[in-house]
Order: sequence, then structure tokens, then C-alpha cells
Amino acid sequence: MTMNTSPMDHPSAPDEQVEIAIVGGGIIGLVLTVGLLRVGAKVKVYEQAQGFREIGAGIAFTANAIRCMHLIDGGIPVALRSSGSVATSNGGEEDPNDYLRWIDGFDRKRGDEPRGQRLLYKLDAGYRGFEGCRRDQFLEALVKIVPPDVVELKKRLESITDGGGADEKLRLAFADGTTAEADIVIGCDGVKSRVRRILLGEDHPASRPSYTHCVAYRTLIPMERAVKALGRYKATNQHNHVGPGANLLHYPVAGNSMLNAVAFVRDRRRWPDERQTVAEGSKADVEAAFEGWCPAVRELIDLFPDTLTKWGIFDLWEYPVPRYHGRSICLAGDAAHASSPHHGAGACVGVEDALCLTTLVEAVVADMRGRPETKRAALDAALTTYDAVRRTRSQWVVNSSRRVCDLHQQREWADDDRLVKAETCFEEIRDRSLKIWHFEYEAMMDEALEGYKRRRRSVNSNRGKKADVY
Amino acid sequence: MTMNTSPMDHPSAPDEQVEIAIVGGGIIGLVLTVGLLRVGAKVKVYEQAQGFREIGAGIAFTANAIRCMHLIDGGIPVALRSSGSVATSNGGEEDPNDYLRWIDGFDRKRGDEPRGQRLLYKLDAGYRGFEGCRRDQFLEALVKIVPPDVVELKKRLESITDGGGADEKLRLAFADGTTAEADIVIGCDGVKSRVRRILLGEDHPASRPSYTHCVAYRTLIPMERAVKALGRYKATNQHNHVGPGANLLHYPVAGNSMLNAVAFVRDRRRWPDERQTVAEGSKADVEAAFEGWCPAVRELIDLFPDTLTKWGIFDLWEYPVPRYHGRSICLAGDAAHASSPHHGAGACVGVEDALCLTTLVEAVVADMRGRPETKRAALDAALTTYDAVRRTRSQWVVNSSRRVCDLHQQREWADDDRLVKAETCFEEIRDRSLKIWHFEYEAMMDEALEGYKRRRRSVNSNRGKKADVY
Repeated sequence: MTMNTSPMDHPSAPDEQVEIAIVGGGIIGLVLTVGLLRVGAKVKVYEQAQGFREIGAGIAFTANAIRCMHLIDGGIPVALRSSGSVATSNGGEEDPNDYLRWIDGFDRKRGDEPRGQRLLYKLDAGYRGFEGCRRDQFLEALVKIVPPDVVELKKRLESITDGGGADEKLRLAFADGTTAEADIVIGCDGVKSRVRRILLGEDHPASRPSYTHCVAYRTLIPMERAVKALGRYKATNQHNHVGPGANLLHYPVAGNSMLNAVAFVRDRRRWPDERQTVAEGSKADVEAAFEGWCPAVRELIDLFPDTLTKWGIFDLWEYPVPRYHGRSICLAGDAAHASSPHHGAGACVGVEDALCLTTLVEAVVADMRGRPETKRAALDAALTTYDAVRRTRSQWVVNSSRRVCDLHQQREWADDDRLVKAETCFEEIRDRSLKIWHFEYEAMMDEALEGYKRRRRSVNSNRGKKADVY
Repeated sequence: MTMNTSPMDHPSAPDEQVEIAIVGGGIIGLVLTVGLLRVGAKVKVYEQAQGFREIGAGIAFTANAIRCMHLIDGGIPVALRSSGSVATSNGGEEDPNDYLRWIDGFDRKRGDEPRGQRLLYKLDAGYRGFEGCRRDQFLEALVKIVPPDVVELKKRLESITDGGGADEKLRLAFADGTTAEADIVIGCDGVKSRVRRILLGEDHPASRPSYTHCVAYRTLIPMERAVKALGRYKATNQHNHVGPGANLLHYPVAGNSMLNAVAFVRDRRRWPDERQTVAEGSKADVEAAFEGWCPAVRELIDLFPDTLTKWGIFDLWEYPVPRYHGRSICLAGDAAHASSPHHGAGACVGVEDALCLTTLVEAVVADMRGRPETKRAALDAALTTYDAVRRTRSQWVVNSSRRVCDLHQQREWADDDRLVKAETCFEEIRDRSLKIWHFEYEAMMDEALEGYKRRRRSVNSNRGKKADVY
């Protein structure tokens, strides 16, 4: 698949085009941009930063999300791989599949094998089940496949005004005093989304994300030192050590030369300042959280630096967004459903959003050929359908990520009498993981197209809340 | 399928037979008995009561559980239907499917329609998704298909003694001073199982069920009075009214002449006496729990009798059984995994157990033809496999039933700001319901047979816990 936005492919006059403003030039914003350009929309991306917004942290995509990328535009998985993505597995030649492993992190005072830990559960994510890369490198590769005039940097959105007329454009006003117009605005501007605040109003509880009462400490440890603490097998394969009030996740990166470790710790306090979600933390804090855990875990934490960054995790669980669209504005990715990271799938759900929107805009563009007057009604049907198709699943992921964190960190792990109970959690963790990994994106595309057609046929139907009251 | 226990079908000498003692003559005990007889085992059922143990309450089976019954023995679904089972749906000619419906029970002070309630979620359980009957009537029909010499009443089990030798029988001792022998004992003796206490020891925390901190008040209301409170549609169709700290489930019974209503109420107190799980309750208690709920719910509760039975709900969630077998003893049904009733599927999981055990004993009987010396090893492989195949799913059902109760009764229902959040629960409730309804019992049978064959091949393999410690 290639981009085919030339007038030869879409021989409609310029005023018949669908003009879309995407707010936010992150990974989801650019993935969506590439898809919408391919199906013939006119797209502009407005990014508030001076450059592109991703940091050097890692990001992983499920095999399923990569198949969604293929359907959005064949250039996107090429960009992902050109950015150096690798399968996160280390099974080697013998077993190319990726696995998630949960291991007992608490100290059981095992007489028989005092340094041993028991593997609690192993889940097969399939061949190249996860591919990981650096966020900034993937974004850089995506920028290369977006035409140069599409993205505008240093555009900090201040307001969106709706003219109100049938074919009236939305007007975006930016902090630098400039304005722009579009038929619809899609907010891809992340967990602190400005578009969400404009859509819902400043006082709506979903306008701001909530503190999950879990913090993350991340660090990189040279592999040979990690091997001394964990043993070679554990150090060179993904493991998630679970225990009371915390869990420790690690996997090898940089061609097995480094171990990427993330300590998630329950925090009962308030987060001091919600505008600043990153704070300085100390190794002593991490050590305190993992007191009473097994020797291997404590020795790994001993390799953490004395001061390290503490990330407050915020999400939209407590107050979910009641609808993903309204007036010609809609939300995608973290702007719509910012999740905690415990499924490692937040960005994958955003890619699904992008596939849904690309599918629907393609239908709108087809509808408008020779019938430019249908644009407003077609876009309304598309955005209403987008909300109906995407909201349930993506908010489920937000809930589910919270739930698996609760299961990873349940107090039962510290109570020998409750250990049988604690271990029954893995059937649920398995189901939740498979629901994310095995998403039927083709069924989603069918559902989107059917919903769109139904709404186009019966614009004034009364289907809705009222019918469900009796 | 018919029972074929005649010597012509199984031409082995009597001493080559598998002798099985089933403790408990309830529905699961008798369903299992019919299956084990069909595959050629010698079965005795020991029931402590003077007659059969089920009460006149209702019980429903999913379409899936009824398919499992077919595979256990074709006579069982015939018995179910001869006992007067009916589809629980009231969709009538136009829609023969069964649905579960969740409806907003809390009072929203709706200005537009003050008596209206909003339907929150509707889930299609398929054609005859549930069939309901009276427990005592189904049991009576089952008794008719069990040969008369198989069941012994007034046999209260006191102990099981293991001779220890390779072909030594287990010896059961009863309160009346009599004894019996068997190769294996299967405990189908319910939530307060004596066999479980013998298997685990009196002091094991799973030997006794725990209070779920939820009570149920059940009553029957004449349909015409219920229609006045609820309106005809709600009264003649299953509805589950959800709200803070309680939920109210009702559905029509007795050919639509009565409404069966169950009020589930959260109870933070200790249960006074765990040996007596039924107590007298009052309408005032129910009214207090549903204070602030909508007019229709409160008017229905007004029709409850002034005094009614309060059922303390006990289950094995807090301390699950660590293994379903040990020495030649195993557990099935509530004895293994007593669940709270919020999925309405406790007995269905017991039917799955019975299908699994029937499948495995059939393999044992086949193995023993001409090789009677293999009996002990074959039975060990069968019971170990039974535990491996059944424990995960059945304990998941126990957990899941608790979880859906928490979702039905979440405090968020009473907070208008949290209502969007509360409604996101239905995707999870749907997934959990479908996992129960759409169980792949044929895959379970395959898994059981493969596990059995593998264990028979490698009796002394080291596969187990030790290999998972590193």
C-alpha cells in the first residue's frame, strides 16, 4: 500500500475534500495521519512542541497491533522495523515465541533451594508476540513517511470554535495567535489532552487524569551484573516478580547487553502536584517497598542507582470519558483512554483506534464522491460510529490494567495460607491478556462499516437512551 | 446412549472392575453415578439423609451444561425435561432466546419519567440459553434412572482409611457402625463436604467454607401484584436491578403466575454461627438495604412478606482447595469449588466435573481390559489428570462469581459522577458470562484423555513443582 492522495486518484474538487486537523504529533497522531492521507483525506497535524514529542523510552507492540498497522498503511510496519524494532523474546533458535512469565518474588525461606524462586505462570504470546523499539526512533521513522507540509510544530492549541452552520468549519486557535480550519478535529494529544478538556469542559472530572496510586521506578542495569543477581536464565528472559504491594518487571534490551528493570510500587499517599507527574526518587524507597522479598530480587534492586526517576502513573480509570466525540471533535489514543502500563498495550489500543478512524473516513470519502453535500451528515455518522465501536473495548483495557496491577500486587502473596488463593489469579490474567492480543480487528472494521451505513440510512432514528427507559 | 453395564459389554471378571464410592446423593452425585455406570464402573452412592437431599428451590442449567449431560449419559437430559424444566425466557414466539438484563435500580430522580429505569445492559444467552426446574423434581427423575441397589441412604460418612498396599481398597466407615470398600472415593457432598475435611484435614483453612459477606432473601410474589410494581415487561422478563451495596434479581416462574425475587445484600458483619447458614430475616432489613432505590424496586420489596428466610452465602473463595485429589480420594461439584450464586452456574460447573470424571474412568476401564494389574496406576493417572484439568476453571468460577457481585453492588452506582465508570463493568461481566456459557467441553475431554495417556506413559516423570524453581 502507498499513499494515493493525488487528484488523479480522487478526482473531486478541493472543496469536496474532508479536512481533518489532528492535534498531537506523537506516535498515534502520525500513524493516524498516514492512514487518513492514504484514504484521501486532507490532513494537518498540529504539535505544540518544537520537535516531535516522544522520549527515548521503549515501547512494544503486539503482533495484532502490527497487523492493524499494515491495514492502516503498509508503510507503517516498514517504519517500525526500520526504526530497529526487535522481537522481545530470547528463546533463540529453538523457540522463537514470546512469553510472559510471572515468578514468586516474595521470600519463602525455601530450605531446599534458598536462592530459588518458583515460576508461577508462563503465557505464550506467539511468534514475535511483541516487538519493541525506542519511541523516539519509531516516531522519527514515521515522520519520514508523512509529506513535509502536513505537520506544523509549535502549535499549542487554545480553543476550538464551532461555527454551527451545516457546512461550517471548526476553527482552531493556537497560542501563537494563528488559527486554522477543519471539518473535524481529532485529539491525539495524550493523557493530558487539551482537546479532551475542550470537548468535555474544564470542570468535567474526566478532563484530568487521576493518580493510580502506583509509581514506577525504571533503570537500566548492565547485563553481566544482572546475571550475578538473578542467574542467567532469569536475566536474559522477561520475568515479572509479583508480591505484596509491588511487582518488579524486567527484560533484556540493547541486544542483551542491558537489563531494563521497572519496579511498580503501591503508594497510598496523594500525588503532590498533578501537573508534574515525574519526581526524583531514591533507591532507599525501592528497597523499602521490596523488604521481605527474596534474595535475587533484593540483589537486583541493590544494583539500582542511588537516585532515580519516580513516575507517578495517571490514567482515566476513575473518571472515564463519557463519549469519544461531540460536535465534530473526537479523541483517540491516550487522549481518549489513557491507561496504566500493566498490560503493556496502551499504544496498541491507540493503533486500533487509528484503524477504526481510517476505515470510517475512507467510507466518508467514498460517500462524498459526486455528493459533496453529504459531508456533514457522513462525518457525524462516522464519529458516532467510532465512539460506539471503540469506547467499550478501550475503557475495558483501562479497567483491566488496573485489575492486573491489583492481582500482581495482592497482599495474599505474603501470606502462606493465602498462596493457593493468590495463584488462582492467573486464569484471569491469561484471559485478559488474550483478549488484548487476539483482538479481532477485521470484525471491528466490519462493525464500523455496518454501523456507519446504518446511521447514514436513518439519520433521524430514535435509537438511543430514551428507548432503554421503561 | 443407554447404560451398558452388563457383563456382555464388559466381559472382565468382577475383581477387575473399578469400584467407586460416591459420597452424597445430590444432583451432581447422581449425574456422575449415571455416567460412571454407563462406562462400566461399579458404583455405590452413600447419602447421609433418610431421603434425597435437594430442596424445592429452583436450579438452572446453561445450554452447555445440558450438552455435557448428553455426553455423560443420554438419559440425564431426558430426566431433566421429564422433571418439568422450561426455558427461562419469555421472549415468546418472536424471540425464543434467553437474555440477562441489568437495569439501573438506584433512584436517579428522573424528571422526565420518574417511574422509568434505564436498561444498562442486555446479554443474549442464545436459544434455550438457560433451562430451569425444581431441584427436588430433577433429583427424583434422576433417581429413577439409577438402578435400585446403587444408592444407600442414612449413611453418614465418618472416616476413610487407606490400606496403603498397591491394590488395597479404601475403607469407608459410617456413623451407623457399618463399613464399605472402594478403589476410589468421590466426594459429591456439597459445600460442607465431609470428604473434603478428610482429604485436607480438619485444621486446613479450606476444610470449611467462608462467609462471603453477602446474604440472600428469596420470595415468591403473585405475578399480578408484581406487575403493578414493576410494569408488565419487567415483571415477566428476567431483570437484575443493580445499585450500591445490593442487587435485586427476579424472573417469572410457574408458567408466569409467580415472580421469583432474590435480594442480595452486602453484610459487613460476621455471620453468627457457621454451622447454621440460614436465619430468620425481616422485610425491614431488606427495606433498609434498598433505601434510596427507585420507586419500582421499593414497591416490589413492599410486597415481600414481613418475615422471610435470610441465606448466608458461603463459598471456597478465600481458601480454595489446593488439590482436588489425594490418596484415591477426589472431590467434585460444590465439595471441590462451592461458589456464590451470582453467575447462576454453580451446578453447571459440577456437571462439567462429572463429564471429566466419566471420560477418565472410561479410559481406565478400557486400560484394565485384560490387564487388571494396571488398576492402581491407571486410577492415579486419572485422578491427577482430573485435578489438572478441572481445578483452574472451577476455581476461576468461584472468583468470578465474587467479582460480578462486587460489580453489581459497587458504590459507584449511587454517585452520578461515577456512573460512566460503573457502566464500564459490563464488558467484563459479558466476558465472564460467555466464558461460562461457551465452555469447550469437547476440548476438555481431549485434554483429559491426553493428560491421562501422558501420565500413564511416564508414571515416574519429574514433571512438577521442582522443575519450575530456578
